[in-house]
Amino acid sequence: MGKLTFSIAMSLDGFVAGPDATLEEPLGRRGEELHEWVLALPGWREAHGRPGGEVTEATKASDDLLVEAMRATGATIMGRRMFSGGSGPWADDPNPDGWWGDTPPFGHAVFVLTNHERQSQQMEGGTTFHFVTDGIESALEQAQAAAGDKNVGIGGGADVAQQYLRARLIDEMTINVVPILLGDGVRLFDRTRDGLPALELTGAIDTPAVTHLQYRVLN
Amino acid sequence: MGKLTFSIAMSLDGFVAGPDATLEEPLGRRGEELHEWVLALPGWREAHGRPGGEVTEATKASDDLLVEAMRATGATIMGRRMFSGGSGPWADDPNPDGWWGDTPPFGHAVFVLTNHERQSQQMEGGTTFHFVTDGIESALEQAQAAAGDKNVGIGGGADVAQQYLRARLIDEMTINVVPILLGDGVRLFDRTRDGLPALELTGAIDTPAVTHLQYRVLN
Repeated sequence: MGKLTFSIAMSLDGFVAGPDATLEEPLGRRGEELHEWVLALPGWREAHGRPGGEVTEATKASDDLLVEAMRATGATIMGRRMFSGGSGPWADDPNPDGWWGDTPPFGHAVFVLTNHERQSQQMEGGTTFHFVTDGIESALEQAQAAAGDKNVGIGGGADVAQQYLRARLIDEMTINVVPILLGDGVRLFDRTRDGLPALELTGAIDTPAVTHLQYRVLN
Repeated sequence: MGKLTFSIAMSLDGFVAGPDATLEEPLGRRGEELHEWVLALPGWREAHGRPGGEVTEATKASDDLLVEAMRATGATIMGRRMFSGGSGPWADDPNPDGWWGDTPPFGHAVFVLTNHERQSQQMEGGTTFHFVTDGIESALEQAQAAAGDKNVGIGGGADVAQQYLRARLIDEMTINVVPILLGDGVRLFDRTRDGLPALELTGAIDTPAVTHLQYRVLN
């Protein structure tokens, strides 16, 4: 069985999305700046059906990291908001088909945490969305079964990552610290008085656009 | 004239002190864990009158960084709480002489931001505490005059660093990310809708105990 991994881009002041998110601007104000480094990487572009991009000396380490993480991941878990931005019954969701288009970039099974049942949806390019209504542990079991020997990745958002972290189910975490200050928005780490696991820093990969901090979670 | 610099230890979840600070435990619960890496460094120990400590391959980069920062700094600015933990009139301060003992580790002029006037206090070992009641810009001017060609360092706390950052007066910032999750406490970066300066990542120094993220502030 593979590991449960989590990778996310965070501003230096701790935000994974800017404030005032809308359907048109789901990452909030300036939230796109968190992902500029990744948009330039050929590995990401290829997975997202956008050929091009260029690996430079400054971005090779990021591209290698991303390509290796994609290769090692056999299933993804994400929150309902990461799927569509909605939260209530699907009939009321203004974006029921989700953000991800006809050919989502995953190429594997994606388990969407929701309170509202829905039939699985097979997409082009190998992605199938499954909708899980019985909690994070059930989603993890189903994702692990789908991933086989590969890892399961948490696709976000922050609230989903926090739930898995507090349940001490995450094995490895990569926090991609982007050198910007957003001032406000969605915090990766909300305040909690729940006990949190210890971490071991296993690596820090330094590029001008982003610092990849890699941790093993000592659950 | 030197630069205005700021260096602080922050948990991965963004806290520079734990929750529930008291006079006996001024860094709050588990806050001491933020500084374990520095307590082992000979450069820090020497400045704090505690000989010993050992530079290992894993800690040499941190020790070099700390010694160079101390060498380059000619004056320090700190908040009232960093001086004594108090906030009201000095007559009511339960800790009016401050945390720093008879021989504070600075060895230069320290400007304490406060709303309550007080005579300067010359200590052993070259430190003099000055109490500044007319704001952060006045404190900076006075500190720069005292520092000469050397840098002025912000000694904290987070609120003081935030004020200087929003006033676009900080030139360089080193955030020492410690691989722990405190869950709650004092945030380095509070939410703000004020505009914040852009940053340029100038270096990341990776040790097992701490990651030193170095930024130039593009004011």
